[in-house]
Amino acid sequence: MPEVEAGDPLPSLIVESVRAAGIEVVAGDVFVVAQKVVSKAEGRIVPLAGIEPSELARDWAARYDKDPRMVEVVLKEAQRIVRMERGVLIAETRHGFICANAGVDASNVAADVVVLLPEDADRSAREIQATLEREFSTTVAVIVSDTFGRPWREGIVNVAIGIAGIAPLIDYRGQPDSHGRDLKVTVIAIADELASAAELVMRKTAGLPVVIIRGFDYTTREASARELIRPPEMDLFR
Amino acid sequence: MPEVEAGDPLPSLIVESVRAAGIEVVAGDVFVVAQKVVSKAEGRIVPLAGIEPSELARDWAARYDKDPRMVEVVLKEAQRIVRMERGVLIAETRHGFICANAGVDASNVAADVVVLLPEDADRSAREIQATLEREFSTTVAVIVSDTFGRPWREGIVNVAIGIAGIAPLIDYRGQPDSHGRDLKVTVIAIADELASAAELVMRKTAGLPVVIIRGFDYTTREASARELIRPPEMDLFR
Repeated sequence: MPEVEAGDPLPSLIVESVRAAGIEVVAGDVFVVAQKVVSKAEGRIVPLAGIEPSELARDWAARYDKDPRMVEVVLKEAQRIVRMERGVLIAETRHGFICANAGVDASNVAADVVVLLPEDADRSAREIQATLEREFSTTVAVIVSDTFGRPWREGIVNVAIGIAGIAPLIDYRGQPDSHGRDLKVTVIAIADELASAAELVMRKTAGLPVVIIRGFDYTTREASARELIRPPEMDLFR
Repeated sequence: MPEVEAGDPLPSLIVESVRAAGIEVVAGDVFVVAQKVVSKAEGRIVPLAGIEPSELARDWAARYDKDPRMVEVVLKEAQRIVRMERGVLIAETRHGFICANAGVDASNVAADVVVLLPEDADRSAREIQATLEREFSTTVAVIVSDTFGRPWREGIVNVAIGIAGIAPLIDYRGQPDSHGRDLKVTVIAIADELASAAELVMRKTAGLPVVIIRGFDYTTREASARELIRPPEMDLFR
């Protein structure tokens, strides 16, 4: 993939890259696309020069040696602060995702700009899907992915933040297991597992923002990454 | 794989299955092994018949329509209760993992028994690795995996609970990104991503407890799944 700039037609760039690589797209292929290129193409880039940090942002930044303008952007992207301790700022975004810095990221972009999450990553995924399906005359699924941290475990993993054409959860409840017993609470977040699998190929510094997963059997339907967000009333770790 | 019973030599069964499938093991292959077969082979099976539930276990079970003996086993496996609300019991195991029911599981086993996590899944992984390396005369890595839930997101995903021969985290900190900027907080939990990738092939009901991942570039070294546990003093969601 070439370097993606604001306003670039990302779906077409993906089609061109697939063709240039000589890849034949097959029905059911799952395209995992890194959030960073989606956000860049959609112009979700904020120059820090124009940002006026609030007092909260200035205080926090001073305490933990951060850029107060970056902190201000994070606070603006947050709909709720979940934790703000020891230099770590975990926030709920307007989409409902809970992640570090409300998904605002400064890596792999020019200095003095930060990248926001796509406004609606499901829509981004659907747009990519529509172009891929038209150009390759077959059905595909698209997952827009980002790397999120998680409580209790070290390191970040890739998860799905936008989805098109694939049921993100497989619900095994009610199906008999190998001993004929009901599988009681087995709902697998396959969209997140597919995103994680793709990250192993993307690697952070490899500049491979699109990965195709082939041969995975899934349910094709209209879907949303919102299905992966636990409803607040069911969440014990708000 | 045949059905695994207590006392079965799991490493040898894996070797036999690989040979029977005509698979040639290649240097660097990562074997992901489902916790369930590891626990079964190691006899980590508890018949519920002999369990005397405490009052706490009886009360909780009555409130949420659960088997009080199963709840008692969970409480015994826990070293700390993290949440106990709305029928959900999240506990820290003696290994330091935080997961539902302290990792005690009743699916895919005979009725009236439950399965505990391996006593030391790193040791289990090392034993499997040693046998594979001896029999196939090459170096491999082994990950023992289990499906864990996570706060904020629906569904469970496969993660690493035991490790041999692979660094579980890749630390990109200090490496320049594609714009020459330092990647500040990018530590990727590749062992968890490898486990998640493997789950897509295992599928809960498919009876495929061992998956081989080939062609992934990683650092070979002695390792432990404890590296994936966030130190309590760094964890904002205890």
